[in-house]
Amino acid sequence: MKQFITVKDVKDIDALIRQGREYKANRLKDEALGRGKRIGLMFFNPSMRTRLSTQIAAKNLGLDPIVLNAGTEGWALEFQDGAVMNGTTVEHIRDAAPILGSYFDVLCVRTFPKLASREEDESDHVIRAFIRHAGIPVISLESATCHPLQSLADLITITEHFQESRKPKIVLTWAPHIKPIPHCVANSFTEWMLAWGKADFVVTAPKGYELSPTFAGDATFTDRQNEALEGADFVYVKNWSSVSEYGKVLGQHPEWMLTEKHLSRAPKAKVMHCLPLRRNVELSDEILDGPRSLLTPLATNRVWSAQSVISEILRNR
Amino acid sequence: MKQFITVKDVKDIDALIRQGREYKANRLKDEALGRGKRIGLMFFNPSMRTRLSTQIAAKNLGLDPIVLNAGTEGWALEFQDGAVMNGTTVEHIRDAAPILGSYFDVLCVRTFPKLASREEDESDHVIRAFIRHAGIPVISLESATCHPLQSLADLITITEHFQESRKPKIVLTWAPHIKPIPHCVANSFTEWMLAWGKADFVVTAPKGYELSPTFAGDATFTDRQNEALEGADFVYVKNWSSVSEYGKVLGQHPEWMLTEKHLSRAPKAKVMHCLPLRRNVELSDEILDGPRSLLTPLATNRVWSAQSVISEILRNR
Amino acid sequence: MKQFITVKDVKDIDALIRQGREYKANRLKDEALGRGKRIGLMFFNPSMRTRLSTQIAAKNLGLDPIVLNAGTEGWALEFQDGAVMNGTTVEHIRDAAPILGSYFDVLCVRTFPKLASREEDESDHVIRAFIRHAGIPVISLESATCHPLQSLADLITITEHFQESRKPKIVLTWAPHIKPIPHCVANSFTEWMLAWGKADFVVTAPKGYELSPTFAGDATFTDRQNEALEGADFVYVKNWSSVSEYGKVLGQHPEWMLTEKHLSRAPKAKVMHCLPLRRNVELSDEILDGPRSLLTPLATNRVWSAQSVISEILRNR
Repeated sequence: MKQFITVKDVKDIDALIRQGREYKANRLKDEALGRGKRIGLMFFNPSMRTRLSTQIAAKNLGLDPIVLNAGTEGWALEFQDGAVMNGTTVEHIRDAAPILGSYFDVLCVRTFPKLASREEDESDHVIRAFIRHAGIPVISLESATCHPLQSLADLITITEHFQESRKPKIVLTWAPHIKPIPHCVANSFTEWMLAWGKADFVVTAPKGYELSPTFAGDATFTDRQNEALEGADFVYVKNWSSVSEYGKVLGQHPEWMLTEKHLSRAPKAKVMHCLPLRRNVELSDEILDGPRSLLTPLATNRVWSAQSVISEILRNR
Repeated sequence: MKQFITVKDVKDIDALIRQGREYKANRLKDEALGRGKRIGLMFFNPSMRTRLSTQIAAKNLGLDPIVLNAGTEGWALEFQDGAVMNGTTVEHIRDAAPILGSYFDVLCVRTFPKLASREEDESDHVIRAFIRHAGIPVISLESATCHPLQSLADLITITEHFQESRKPKIVLTWAPHIKPIPHCVANSFTEWMLAWGKADFVVTAPKGYELSPTFAGDATFTDRQNEALEGADFVYVKNWSSVSEYGKVLGQHPEWMLTEKHLSRAPKAKVMHCLPLRRNVELSDEILDGPRSLLTPLATNRVWSAQSVISEILRNR
Repeated sequence: MKQFITVKDVKDIDALIRQGREYKANRLKDEALGRGKRIGLMFFNPSMRTRLSTQIAAKNLGLDPIVLNAGTEGWALEFQDGAVMNGTTVEHIRDAAPILGSYFDVLCVRTFPKLASREEDESDHVIRAFIRHAGIPVISLESATCHPLQSLADLITITEHFQESRKPKIVLTWAPHIKPIPHCVANSFTEWMLAWGKADFVVTAPKGYELSPTFAGDATFTDRQNEALEGADFVYVKNWSSVSEYGKVLGQHPEWMLTEKHLSRAPKAKVMHCLPLRRNVELSDEILDGPRSLLTPLATNRVWSAQSVISEILRNR
């Protein structure tokens, strides 16, 4: 694996899950792997779980992580080839990325979509420019389109909590939010579910919130949440803004907030969310503080997800 | 010791002082204690000495410190149980804290009082919410009410600089400032002095600046600064805002600025201040640049104070 | 070497270059030198390359770097002796610096000129106050007047790329920019060239952009860029604001942007720039993306420059 931006970069999802679970059982088993190597963590957007879990994962592998808060430190990069830089950008990615490539062995980048142009966001031009110009492996810490470290943690969590021989029923359900939210987590979860192929998977959201086919492919979609939730083993709750009316909030839909009542016909359903979340807007307290919630174990698994991916990158350079 | 928020969390103050002084003599003697463990340093408010000294103390113990600037990175947490989070807060402490608890072995938190409501500040609800929900030991790096790592450093400094068999006379004297300042350092110094019990201790401040009995208990108080300073061995200088007219500055009182003249009847008095300080407002240059000042040794002792507390926490998990 | 602020602090430039190149060949050869020591990196102004390269250099020497973003964290220091601090500054350098001196073994400081008063900037009062009050060696990460770690990296790069027995011709050429830029890199490059003395060196800039004689001494200066560039082996491109009309931009001079056409009579010329740079304003894409560019190797050499200086400081305490 030379880069980790989308599930398409992964040869063997199950091996990556398995390795993550092995690190969970023995976090220092590959402590020597990254010795003397350096990993850069560049944040164009803020992060708590992703930053911490990746720092910890890197250190578990003996790597030395260095954090760069490009966003808050106002490092305005230019991405347009041929630009005459007489405006607000202070450095071109063509000049900056190769230097990061010389300082680090692996580069991790977080960047959010602007939600202004679907074409621009789906091109994922920021992280792809780092890949093109840095000359070292690049790991997405969430980009304009996907959040693959989250999806791998999702799968580690699901496989830990489902031991039956049948396929689990997994539902990705849209939840209300007060502002326009990127599609990354939903896109990624869906494309990983499809690529993994070991679940009975359905996406449910109000009409107008269908995901982009680029990521959701032919995943089953319904706007009848109740039907979707019936018999679910795992319910992944997440808000996202509209794709067709790009980046817009089409209505509040408070009835989509997940409560115990919604799960009356899914007695075994475990509930997941990538966090951060708006309590009593996306999900009710009763679920979050009750036995269905997998939120803390899921966030904890972000460490093992990151460690599995960094390890794979280090081995395959 | 499972938490370190107030002097009430400490079983044996003298043992903690002694251990701090042992680390000062041999800073790496417990280098193996924290090996493979992680400590999170979360700042809701800025910090220089506290951050650096705690990072260094952690590393001396072989621990890996990770800093989170929750304040500047705008991570707006919700603390109200049952809140419908459709406003400005983005994550609930009930969801965030357990994850920090899973990433770290020890969590350090700095948070300031708002100085708007005495009741709210004295409840110390932010740091207490971390204690309640993180599931790991929590160390205060200054909270809404107290600054115990400072007080322990104060005591390390006092015991280093006083070898006589009699009790030292220690005076906490209010000093002028240009804006409303929290009570934490004064509260803490007073409650540690009372709990330690080995000093002849007096608090002096203008009328209206009496400390909260919650922390100051039955400490001797006088508004006659000159009498209080007479024969002092240690003079701790600090501004705080009013408690009775909560968070207010009741007047400038420039005559309370500590100068050599104020110490004319305290020839041996050493002067302390937690820093940062306003020169020639709180304390005069002549004192700060003269032989009475213990400010640099005191700030240096912040390392040994933190190291003693972290060590105690690690041993008693 | 007790401090590294200007070339005047260096006894043997060639030894420092040689040591830098040795670290490039074997970066961990002095891994034990800094073991158990601490280096503080204090930034009053933002930094990418300087921060990363110094962190990496420190770690290569076994040192533990701790970064302080004094600028973004709004730590307003007072530098005026005798100040009555009833304004916006919160701590005096006389109080802050000795504490940093007690926490660290080496202190690195970055601070920019304000470009308001030549006298104030040339006094370099911020970094000199740290030297005066910290009591430990201070390394400039760029100050109000100079950027010596950059100049040492420049010389490492030049010596790597020039094997002939004759003196290389080295040209420092002014380039357009859209806003007023400090003189530090140009000052430093010039004073290092003069002190090194092994090049045929010329500075070229439009009239009004002559450098300060404090740094440029009797360096050859011409406003005829074409003549200066003729036969050049190395062309260092950099903008700076006026010195005589202090801190001002005297005109755009777009014809000074370096392009291939400018180098028609310098076929072997390699091009350098300290970065960040404004593409197609200071330098053309054709040069930056062509074989003349030494920009990435130069920025990479910042690691070895910093490592050589820190190592020298550690050995000579």
